[in-house]
Amino acid sequence: MQPITTPVISQTINMPRIKALINHLATISSSPHELTRLAFSSEDLAARNYVLEICRQYPLKVRIDEIGNLIIRYDGTQNDLPAVAFGSHIDTVVNAGKFDGPLGTIAGLEILLQLCEQQQQTRYPLELIIFTCEESSRFNYATLGSKVMCGVSKQADLAHLQDKNGISLATALQQIGLDFQQVDQAKRSAAEFKCFFELHIEQGPRLENEQKTIGVVTGIAAPIRCIVKIQGQADHSGATAMNYRHDALLGGAELALELEQAAIRAGHATVATVGQLQVKPGVMNVVPGYCELLIDIRGTDITARESVFSALQQKIDKVSQQRGLQIELQLISRDQPIILNTDMVNTVEQAAVGLGYTYEIMPSGAGHDAMHMATLCPTGMIFVPSRQGISHNPLEHTDWQDVEAGIKVLQAVVLQQAELI
Amino acid sequence: MQPITTPVISQTINMPRIKALINHLATISSSPHELTRLAFSSEDLAARNYVLEICRQYPLKVRIDEIGNLIIRYDGTQNDLPAVAFGSHIDTVVNAGKFDGPLGTIAGLEILLQLCEQQQQTRYPLELIIFTCEESSRFNYATLGSKVMCGVSKQADLAHLQDKNGISLATALQQIGLDFQQVDQAKRSAAEFKCFFELHIEQGPRLENEQKTIGVVTGIAAPIRCIVKIQGQADHSGATAMNYRHDALLGGAELALELEQAAIRAGHATVATVGQLQVKPGVMNVVPGYCELLIDIRGTDITARESVFSALQQKIDKVSQQRGLQIELQLISRDQPIILNTDMVNTVEQAAVGLGYTYEIMPSGAGHDAMHMATLCPTGMIFVPSRQGISHNPLEHTDWQDVEAGIKVLQAVVLQQAELI
Repeated sequence: MQPITTPVISQTINMPRIKALINHLATISSSPHELTRLAFSSEDLAARNYVLEICRQYPLKVRIDEIGNLIIRYDGTQNDLPAVAFGSHIDTVVNAGKFDGPLGTIAGLEILLQLCEQQQQTRYPLELIIFTCEESSRFNYATLGSKVMCGVSKQADLAHLQDKNGISLATALQQIGLDFQQVDQAKRSAAEFKCFFELHIEQGPRLENEQKTIGVVTGIAAPIRCIVKIQGQADHSGATAMNYRHDALLGGAELALELEQAAIRAGHATVATVGQLQVKPGVMNVVPGYCELLIDIRGTDITARESVFSALQQKIDKVSQQRGLQIELQLISRDQPIILNTDMVNTVEQAAVGLGYTYEIMPSGAGHDAMHMATLCPTGMIFVPSRQGISHNPLEHTDWQDVEAGIKVLQAVVLQQAELI
Repeated sequence: MQPITTPVISQTINMPRIKALINHLATISSSPHELTRLAFSSEDLAARNYVLEICRQYPLKVRIDEIGNLIIRYDGTQNDLPAVAFGSHIDTVVNAGKFDGPLGTIAGLEILLQLCEQQQQTRYPLELIIFTCEESSRFNYATLGSKVMCGVSKQADLAHLQDKNGISLATALQQIGLDFQQVDQAKRSAAEFKCFFELHIEQGPRLENEQKTIGVVTGIAAPIRCIVKIQGQADHSGATAMNYRHDALLGGAELALELEQAAIRAGHATVATVGQLQVKPGVMNVVPGYCELLIDIRGTDITARESVFSALQQKIDKVSQQRGLQIELQLISRDQPIILNTDMVNTVEQAAVGLGYTYEIMPSGAGHDAMHMATLCPTGMIFVPSRQGISHNPLEHTDWQDVEAGIKVLQAVVLQQAELI
C-alpha cells in the first residue's frame, strides 16, 4: 500500500435521492414485468431524457455526441484544463437488474448535483459521461459508445451491425435523430481528459465472499473466445461397443475439464468457461457424432491467459488422437487485457482507506467502458459487492450501504483529482 | 461349439428378386429425397400393400391383426402343430437406410415364395410376421406390434401415445381401418408358436471389424434409461473466479466420462451413452447454471449393467458434494435384457457352420421385435454386417453377398425347425 499523500475529501451525498433515481430508472422498461431497456430503444431514450430533465435544473452543460453518448459537464475554475471524467451506462440487457450501469451513472450525477447545490467548484472541469450501448444485448456488440469515443471502433467497423429484427445500427441511430455518417466525429482526444473513473457493481461474488466493501480494480480482463467443433461418428448406442466408438461429446467433456484445470494452474485470477456445449444428433439412443463448445478464457495476465489457450490446443491434439475425432479450433476474438494506471489504482485505494472501508485489490473479469477510456487517459475503477455475484438478472442486488460507500469513494477520487476549491 | 446334429438344409434363393424387393421398398417414402416411412402412415400402408399384392399371387394366407401386424401363413402338412415363425418390420425412422427391417421381412417372404414355387411343404406351418411400428420414431414407443402380440403392452398402456402432430395412436389406427378398442385381441399365446427367428442388420461395427459374415445372437440387451438434472449457479464468466463456481456443465462432463469408464470396467459388452447434454443458459459469457443429460446403459448381463448404474449414482454423490451442485437422477425405464434360448442359438450357429460362413457369437445391443417373441417361444436372431456400423441413416449399407448369407442361414434354420418334407 502506498502512503497516503492526500487528505480524503468526504462530502455529503443525498441517499434518498440516489435510491429514488435508481428505483425510478428501473421502471423505465419495454415490459411491465421485467427491466429491459435495450440501447437506442424508446425506453432507453426515455431514461436519458429523464436524466437530462434533472440536469436542466442545474448549471450543467449537456450535449449528445454523434454516437449517442450523453456528456454532462460542470465547468471548472480553470476551464481550459482537461476534464476529470467519470460515468457508466443506462442501457440494460434483457430481463436485467437495476444496478448494472445506473449505479455509476446516478453516482456521477449525485456528485455534480451536490457541487451545484453546495455552490462549490473544482479547478478542473468535470464530465459525467453516460455511454451509449454498453451491453451487447441489442447488436451483439459491447461498449459501443466508449469504443467510438476512444477511436477503438470506427464507422466502417460498425456498418454490418444489426439487431435481431434486422434493424441496422444506422437505422437505430436515425430513429433517435443521429446520423450514422457522422459517428466518427464522436472520437475524442487524450488531451481532453485528465483521468476517468467508473463505479460499477462487481457482477461476481468475490467482495461478498471476502466480506469487503470496495473493490479496487487493477485491470480489466479481456477474453480469448473460440469455438471448438468436434466431429466424431454417430452410432447406435446399443449396438456399438465402447471400444468402437468415436464419441464427440466425451471429447468435449475432456476439453471442458482440462480448461478448468488449466485456468486453476495458470493463476493470476485467470478464468476459463465452456458456456455452451451442443450435441448432435442429441438423442437418447445415438452415440454423439458431433459436439460444439463455446469457450471464453479471460485474464489480465496475458502469459497466464495464453497458457490456458495452449493447454486447450494440446488437449485437442491428445483427445483427437486417442478418440479418433476430428477437432477444429476457431478463434473468434483475442482482445487485449487492460492494466489500469497505478496512480489511479492507488488513488482509489487511498480513498477507501481514508473513508474507512474494507477493500479488495482485484481485477475486473467483466468488460466495461473504462477499458476503452484507459486507452485515452489514466483510468480507475471502483467495485461494490453483488449479492451472490448475480448480475444480468432481476436478482441482481447491492445493499444501499454498499451503494453509498461506492459513491463516496468515487466522489472522493473525483474531487481530489479535480481539486475542489 | 455344439456338435452338429442336424444336416443343414441349403436351398435356392432368388437374389435378383430379393434385391428388387428391397430396392423397391426403399422408394416408398413420404419424401422423394430420403427414405422416411413412419408407422401407420400412407407410405407404410403402401409398402404393406405392396407385400400383400405379391403374397396374393401365391397359396399364402394373409391376415392383419388388431394392432396392424401382417401375418402371412403357409400351411404345414400337419397344420395343427404350432407355427415356425420369422419376420421383422417395414416401418422406418426419419431419413432411414433401406435394410433396417426390410431385410428380415423380404428374407422371410423369399423363403415362403421359394417353397411355393418349388411346391414344397414343411411339417410345421410357417408364419412370416411383419410387425407394425417397430421404430419409436412416430410415437416414441418402440416395437409396438410385437409388444401387443406378446402381451407385453396392453391397450391401457397405449392410451397416452401421440405423435408430434398430436395424433393419437387410436386415431392413427382408425385412419387405416383398425379399432383401438380391439387391440388386445392381437395378443397370441405361447402354444401357437414352436419358435421364432429374426434376421436383421447388426447396426454396429463388430462383424465388420472382426471380418465375420454372420452374427449368432445370444441375447438382446435392454436399456436402463435415465435423465440427470444438474442445478448449479449461473454466473458471469469473466467476473467469477474458478474457486467460486458451481458449473453444472463441468459436473455433467465428469458424469459422462465416468459412465464411459464404468461401462469399460463392467465388461460383458455393457455399453453406456450420454446421447444428449443440454446447457442453460448456454451462452458464451455465463458459467452454465443448469445441465441435463440423457443416459442409456445397456447390456445383456444384468449385474454388469447394474454396476454401471451404481457407478453413476456414486459419481453423482461425489460430484454434487465437490462442486456444490444439486443433482437429481430420474429413472425413465429399466427394461429386462433377454437371453435367447440356447437351442436356438446353437441352431443358428450350426447353420452358419454348415453353410461355411464365418460367424461371431454376440449380443444384440439394439432392441428388436425378437426380444418380445422370446417371452412367448424359443427365439433366435441372425445378424449380418453393417458397413462402418452405420444405421438409422441413408449411409446404412450391407453387401448383397452378406444379405444372401443371412437369408440362407435364416432359410436353413426355418426349414430345419419346420421339418421340410
